[in-house]
Amino acid sequence: MQTIIAKFGGPAIATAEKIRNVAKKVIKEQASGINLVVVVSSMASIRRELRQFAHDITDEPSKREMDVLIATGAQMTSALLTMAIQELGGKAVSLTGWQAGIKTNDTHRNARVEDVDVKRIKSHLAQGEIVVVSGFQGITEVHDITTLGKGGSETSAVALAVALEAERVDIYSNVDGIFTADPQIVEHARMLPEISYDEMLEFANLGAHILHPRAVELAKKYEIPLVIRSNERDVDGTLIKGDVEMEKNLIVRGVAYESDIIRLTIGYDSYETASLAEVFHALAEHEINVDIIVQAVIDGIKPTISFTIAKEEFAESLRVLEVSKLSLGFSFADFEVGLAKVSIVGSGMVSNPGVAARMFARLGKEHIPVKMVSTSEIKVSVVVPQDEMVRAANALHDEFNLAILEISAS
Amino acid sequence: MQTIIAKFGGPAIATAEKIRNVAKKVIKEQASGINLVVVVSSMASIRRELRQFAHDITDEPSKREMDVLIATGAQMTSALLTMAIQELGGKAVSLTGWQAGIKTNDTHRNARVEDVDVKRIKSHLAQGEIVVVSGFQGITEVHDITTLGKGGSETSAVALAVALEAERVDIYSNVDGIFTADPQIVEHARMLPEISYDEMLEFANLGAHILHPRAVELAKKYEIPLVIRSNERDVDGTLIKGDVEMEKNLIVRGVAYESDIIRLTIGYDSYETASLAEVFHALAEHEINVDIIVQAVIDGIKPTISFTIAKEEFAESLRVLEVSKLSLGFSFADFEVGLAKVSIVGSGMVSNPGVAARMFARLGKEHIPVKMVSTSEIKVSVVVPQDEMVRAANALHDEFNLAILEISAS
Repeated sequence: MQTIIAKFGGPAIATAEKIRNVAKKVIKEQASGINLVVVVSSMASIRRELRQFAHDITDEPSKREMDVLIATGAQMTSALLTMAIQELGGKAVSLTGWQAGIKTNDTHRNARVEDVDVKRIKSHLAQGEIVVVSGFQGITEVHDITTLGKGGSETSAVALAVALEAERVDIYSNVDGIFTADPQIVEHARMLPEISYDEMLEFANLGAHILHPRAVELAKKYEIPLVIRSNERDVDGTLIKGDVEMEKNLIVRGVAYESDIIRLTIGYDSYETASLAEVFHALAEHEINVDIIVQAVIDGIKPTISFTIAKEEFAESLRVLEVSKLSLGFSFADFEVGLAKVSIVGSGMVSNPGVAARMFARLGKEHIPVKMVSTSEIKVSVVVPQDEMVRAANALHDEFNLAILEISAS
Repeated sequence: MQTIIAKFGGPAIATAEKIRNVAKKVIKEQASGINLVVVVSSMASIRRELRQFAHDITDEPSKREMDVLIATGAQMTSALLTMAIQELGGKAVSLTGWQAGIKTNDTHRNARVEDVDVKRIKSHLAQGEIVVVSGFQGITEVHDITTLGKGGSETSAVALAVALEAERVDIYSNVDGIFTADPQIVEHARMLPEISYDEMLEFANLGAHILHPRAVELAKKYEIPLVIRSNERDVDGTLIKGDVEMEKNLIVRGVAYESDIIRLTIGYDSYETASLAEVFHALAEHEINVDIIVQAVIDGIKPTISFTIAKEEFAESLRVLEVSKLSLGFSFADFEVGLAKVSIVGSGMVSNPGVAARMFARLGKEHIPVKMVSTSEIKVSVVVPQDEMVRAANALHDEFNLAILEISAS
């Protein structure tokens, strides 16, 4: 019998009414003749309440104790969803992370899954029960409770799929699937029936906050198909899998954007004093994510480095740079706000060297200034003025014919 | 090194401020050179919220899933108190029921502790840590989460004391200790420095809701001294232990009351049709606690049975009796509301047969009618009209000289 993992997060389980809807959905799903494991995260309201509790006690809670506190959230949801399934006549059982055998390392608040012992889950499945697992959590070798950090619940789901050799993981979300661009800013955006892991990774990294790259990476490694689908509407969603053969001829698969980024620039008097590694090390130590990095030379001798950060990390970045100024030996720092990043993504780019040129040409034709550029094998990102972002995204969506329906399906 | 168990419940941990106060107290306690294990229950507000969540999903949640849900409450408190202790510079670690090795049977919502594996607690104590255990919960042989039902947190504390061979259990509460009578209704009530397990059991059963009889019974069985003390004020409290030798000469130790009880009466046409056991079995099945039972005979042939119940269980009791009327074969049911129970308690009564007579004489002198009587070896209870309760309690407190300080201390 096929095993399927279904993951429900925040919006899908926010109220009793919504939990009941999820219960109906999973009962129907199981009735199609599969083994079903459901992974749930905490309700957002509970997560906020728990954080506030901790905050009222201390500004710096120990990570171990935060895990003990935060892990209660998904445990609650797992019990409530199980009750809802039973209320509708279904058979179900809830399991915490440790009961489900999710074993992690001991990096509290950001633990990595090391192994899943699925004996218990299998015995419940064999009894025809829907197994409802608390996502985002696990247990260390010495039986301490851990949480998995960002993307944790999706990671729980994929890890369970690997250990149970599941057919696929259905990630229920408040979107119908992955789109060629954000439908809210690009009129002709349409849903993609399939994309590759690598494309999804780029989308995830480029600001499409539907799925954390971490879960995609794990799915890619073990070749577990993921499906992004709506928890509201009964649509097929987007299947994320390995090579999407039939579509190799499509060079660009989608347009992504991040709407509010800031460019910081630091300069050195000479190459001798420049210590790139140390600057980014200092930023990383304060958990500041640096995105695009560009190095330029002014006057033939003075190196400058520009990089982008998210707006939320601006104040902290300035503080870190200010403190590091003397020890890291740079002479000035500047910044530019009001920027946005627009990216095109597609596995087909690897073998199509002209894609970036075509992108710049179209942006030039639209008189949209490009402030920075960054490329990978399957994406090109440009930094543009924030107020040109929507126009840039629409132009690129048009340029690469993304609104046109694909010829073949999987 | 001595080991002491300290239990903090509802009011002591209701807010961040109160949790900080508990943290201060336990750090000071540990600094006196002891091993300290702290048992906490859920905040009352959280317990209510969790129950409401379940109620919003279903009227009849499965007991297993209720345990999974409810157990999160004490887990939260244990993490928060541990954070508060650490914030103040103390060393502490939180443990859930299963991490603390509290093993129970599988009677969900009302599990019995079967064994405590204290290996892990001991290793934390050896590292100088205050161990904060989630009370009210345990784990079954197949690793399901259980909760212990009424009196569960105190029972956790006593069970840990037994397994750790602790010196004593300090039960922190919102009262200073056990009083000769409720100071709110008896003017000259005073705190007892010591009472016996048996006396405490009677007090607990007679409506002094400070400590559940179950925890007292367990403490009695393993001779673990309990101390009831204030979480607000620094007073000695009341020590509950085995025979309180020095005070044998004190016949009556205190006066207890229950302010709102109801008497139900059912009658049979003849002894042939009377089935006492079945009536009380039907009530017990619906978890209705029957207290005083009196059987009388009217007209020489028609047996009647009167019994008292708490006001809260009135509606349910009537419903159960109405449904059972035909099958259990009784012919009428009557009730009297507006009653109260007043009891005198003391180990000394066993060897003093005149105590009940003295009680009735005093009540007669005060013109307080006695509706029902119930006795045990160490208590006498009378049912009186509710509006005479305070006068009865004061009269009996005076009659047995309870306001007078004891001559000897332990």
